[in-house]
Amino acid sequence: MDRTDAEALDAADPLAGFRDEFVVADEGLVYFDGNSLGRLPRRTADRLAKVVSDGWGTGLVRSWSAWIDLPGQVGDRLAAAALGAAGGQVVVGDSTTVNLYKLAAAALDGRPGRRAVVCDPGDFPTDRYVMAGLAQARGLEIRPVAPGGRLGSVLDGDVALVMFSMVDYRSGEIADVPAITDAAHRAGALTLWDLSHAAGAVDVHLDAWGVDLATGCTYKYLNAGPGAPAWLYVRDALREQLLPPVWGWFGQRDQFEMGAAFEPAPGIRRWVSGTPAVLGLVALDEALAVLERAGIGRVRAKSIALTTVAAGLADDWLAPLGFSLASPDDARRRGSHLALRHPEARRLSRALREEAATVPDFRPPDLLRVGLSPLTTRFTEVWDGFDRIRRLAADAAWDRYDPSPETVT
Amino acid sequence: MDRTDAEALDAADPLAGFRDEFVVADEGLVYFDGNSLGRLPRRTADRLAKVVSDGWGTGLVRSWSAWIDLPGQVGDRLAAAALGAAGGQVVVGDSTTVNLYKLAAAALDGRPGRRAVVCDPGDFPTDRYVMAGLAQARGLEIRPVAPGGRLGSVLDGDVALVMFSMVDYRSGEIADVPAITDAAHRAGALTLWDLSHAAGAVDVHLDAWGVDLATGCTYKYLNAGPGAPAWLYVRDALREQLLPPVWGWFGQRDQFEMGAAFEPAPGIRRWVSGTPAVLGLVALDEALAVLERAGIGRVRAKSIALTTVAAGLADDWLAPLGFSLASPDDARRRGSHLALRHPEARRLSRALREEAATVPDFRPPDLLRVGLSPLTTRFTEVWDGFDRIRRLAADAAWDRYDPSPETVT
Repeated sequence: MDRTDAEALDAADPLAGFRDEFVVADEGLVYFDGNSLGRLPRRTADRLAKVVSDGWGTGLVRSWSAWIDLPGQVGDRLAAAALGAAGGQVVVGDSTTVNLYKLAAAALDGRPGRRAVVCDPGDFPTDRYVMAGLAQARGLEIRPVAPGGRLGSVLDGDVALVMFSMVDYRSGEIADVPAITDAAHRAGALTLWDLSHAAGAVDVHLDAWGVDLATGCTYKYLNAGPGAPAWLYVRDALREQLLPPVWGWFGQRDQFEMGAAFEPAPGIRRWVSGTPAVLGLVALDEALAVLERAGIGRVRAKSIALTTVAAGLADDWLAPLGFSLASPDDARRRGSHLALRHPEARRLSRALREEAATVPDFRPPDLLRVGLSPLTTRFTEVWDGFDRIRRLAADAAWDRYDPSPETVT
Repeated sequence: MDRTDAEALDAADPLAGFRDEFVVADEGLVYFDGNSLGRLPRRTADRLAKVVSDGWGTGLVRSWSAWIDLPGQVGDRLAAAALGAAGGQVVVGDSTTVNLYKLAAAALDGRPGRRAVVCDPGDFPTDRYVMAGLAQARGLEIRPVAPGGRLGSVLDGDVALVMFSMVDYRSGEIADVPAITDAAHRAGALTLWDLSHAAGAVDVHLDAWGVDLATGCTYKYLNAGPGAPAWLYVRDALREQLLPPVWGWFGQRDQFEMGAAFEPAPGIRRWVSGTPAVLGLVALDEALAVLERAGIGRVRAKSIALTTVAAGLADDWLAPLGFSLASPDDARRRGSHLALRHPEARRLSRALREEAATVPDFRPPDLLRVGLSPLTTRFTEVWDGFDRIRRLAADAAWDRYDPSPETVT
């Protein structure tokens, strides 16, 4: 494959124009980290400025009449655009970490007497840590298994909850959500899915798959900005059965009557804890407008095309230089990033950022992650980025770079 | 008192110029709700625009090197400016509700075997609900008492935690934090203080008072904007003893090594759960720059002067119209808002907003709250606002206004 092939793919890409809806301050930069922080949609800056100036500055507290329902309104929009979920099941708020805690704790309360949980020992740290904390507090047994592993050997009537990520943060492998959810249900367990690396990049059908609970961040493929609030999904059928562990004023029925006892709001709003983060909600709302116009089907198709091109270049150019693909060979089983294993991945990642205007990221111990964000990544950008990786790796002057641990994400 | 007296007070006010550091879009508006949502500092809009455009748009994920320590950096700044706390004890993140939950749960874990908690049945709803949820989950007895009540009758060796608000959200009464903290400690209990209605308006000396744990929002007197993150304080001496219930990746020692087991970060950072809300943190940072220049001592002095003028006008003008002061008579025992009791307070609040360009708020069942924000409220604004209240109340045409519950804050 040479660069003209990549140019032809860009020319034929139905989503090519969407890159113009985002701020691209440096066209020379290869950005392979939209899976950590997605680019800024052009209209988001204006929308935020307007909310700050008009909503906060001029409207003052009166603007809360427009803001108070944002968690559910933006949640519904997200549910339709990216989650395959009907309205009334998603709210936006808190962080992924706090939502994992709230959902897992509620699920455990909803399966009293069961003393075990199933989760992935290779899951993203916050998922593992949240579950370890809950397990320690409640004296639960953690049964470790990967979502692609032998689930049958750990699932029995003592399992309260199965918690996995849909897309592995290292390999990018997509879990078989419907099959795992079915298996968990047959054992009487609930399922909690972390979709941080999935939402906005792959097809998701939470309702059709029978998923019980889910959460995810919004600053990766959903492009809502640094530290924007996460979302959570609670299946309609469970809404009245489960109660969040954090009983907050915003989850109260007849909130402004400020009643003596906590009475959970009848709908999904009981999961809203404290005051909604207005700026982050508005940023997500604006980013969803872009995603809606693109359509998640076209986004997924481009994601597959991007990782296919990238995997081909990795095979042709990087395998001879000591790299191996740590992602599934089948593009349909991959999310929108690739993991490339290399013994000097940490220093290579630094070198790419510092000397080659290329921003991938590193995940210990030896993975270079290449995130391909369907709305903003070009095929020529993939080609250029892999070209820079092969040149740097061929140079192999690793001693110039600091091998000490990262301090940034 | 006539309006020229108020003008003289403004002329002599050393903080008068600070109002110009905030956006005042409508000089005719009397804003008595800075205790719900503080005004927008002028420089905040520019700072946010810059972070969005340069930090997110241009810097992309690389900007996390500047953002990742914001929870502790802004926490330290807040601690020094408004909390009377040395560095390393405050982080900014999550909501007040989530922080109350995290701190209370950790305190209960830190006092195993004790089966009771003390809290105020008249506290702000989220405080009561969070504690009710924890008490139900853990089978604890709630011993209700107001912070000004007979604490001695409920404090014994079975009490794990005493949780109060420093400033009552209705009356504005200031609790005797050091005395209550001492009493709790003599019983071997920990203390958790909600400073939402205190921080940025009254003198706070968390270190000197021996407070164990505290939290509060930042969108009231701290002027950080709608839904900006809350803060939490954990006394240095307790830091290694207490563990948050939510074990998050951002609280992990050597975060980017992504280790197998959760090892809490040695300092206050263990209390950071998920990804920091960058926009809210930056807005708080900018607002603190204004507070630092004013100085909390001058802020408190003006707060006392403002509520003294307001209480005098309430007495002179409103008492004859059926209002009574539901706040302490002694200004030193009041925060920065007054509560005026009136049987038609709900409709009066609506009428003031709709017809008299005056924004107070209503708290059930019969309180009109008048918030006086020392950095932005003028003495003439107090005079004008009370003049509008007396005119409307004298008119007494309540039937024109909807008596149904509020749906905005």
